Amino acid sequence: MECALEEARLAAGRGEVPVGAVLVSGGKVVARAGNRTLELNDPSAHAEILVIREACRQMRSQRLPAFDLYVTLEPCTMCAGAISFARIRRLYFGAEDTKGGAVINGVRFFDQSTCHHKPDTYSGLAQSDSETLLREFFAPKRHS
Amino acid sequence: MECALEEARLAAGRGEVPVGAVLVSGGKVVARAGNRTLELNDPSAHAEILVIREACRQMRSQRLPAFDLYVTLEPCTMCAGAISFARIRRLYFGAEDTKGGAVINGVRFFDQSTCHHKPDTYSGLAQSDSETLLREFFAPKRHS
Repeated sequence: MECALEEARLAAGRGEVPVGAVLVSGGKVVARAGNRTLELNDPSAHAEILVIREACRQMRSQRLPAFDLYVTLEPCTMCAGAISFARIRRLYFGAEDTKGGAVINGVRFFDQSTCHHKPDTYSGLAQSDSETLLREFFAPKRHS
Repeated sequence: MECALEEARLAAGRGEVPVGAVLVSGGKVVARAGNRTLELNDPSAHAEILVIREACRQMRSQRLPAFDLYVTLEPCTMCAGAISFARIRRLYFGAEDTKGGAVINGVRFFDQSTCHHKPDTYSGLAQSDSETLLREFFAPKRHS
């Protein structure tokens, strides 16, 4: 989770919403990324999608059943869908996202009948650090 | 919609689930694609995501408020999220997807409070042709 937080900090440094993600398999970090939606002009370039695409590229597979995903923020609807398609084994996330989350908020996708693979999910890892990063990023924008 | 169907047929020819998508702006087709999840080893490479990424690349923006999306199948949860993030103006789709759809089935994402942009949505365009393509693609697999 420290790697994911580091990626979130790097994203903030690039002016991106500070969310970071890491995919781990066999005790090894296989892919790590922060949000790059602005840099890449790609609304799908959330940290989770970027690490899934990178790990799939390395594994030459569209499925990652032996992978665990660490991400600093509760995944959104788009990313929850991708996590399910990729057959991610476990999902660990930091801050809860009441406005855009789709795991324990919003559509709670993994609990729906149109979700065909549900990862084991653990929330609240490094929650305080993850939230602080997001709060510090958005605070000046709200006052400007 | 005929372009989207053509992309779906091309996807079937590559052994991919036959779904095609086209993004139109100002009466012009700006991006067209079929599913490429197998070819690209990328579970996010649904037709909708591919055309959104391509149009965003061309427009140098992560938002496409003047774009209309035509797709042969009801978008899934992942794609519905991406469509919303990209601020797509109108969504036209063909076949309904009771197992994996997220617009008029499943999580009905555009009607949820965690969805912050809802495209105008029209269903049933070229529905019969879209369904036939999918049925013909999956039928031999079911019997093998």
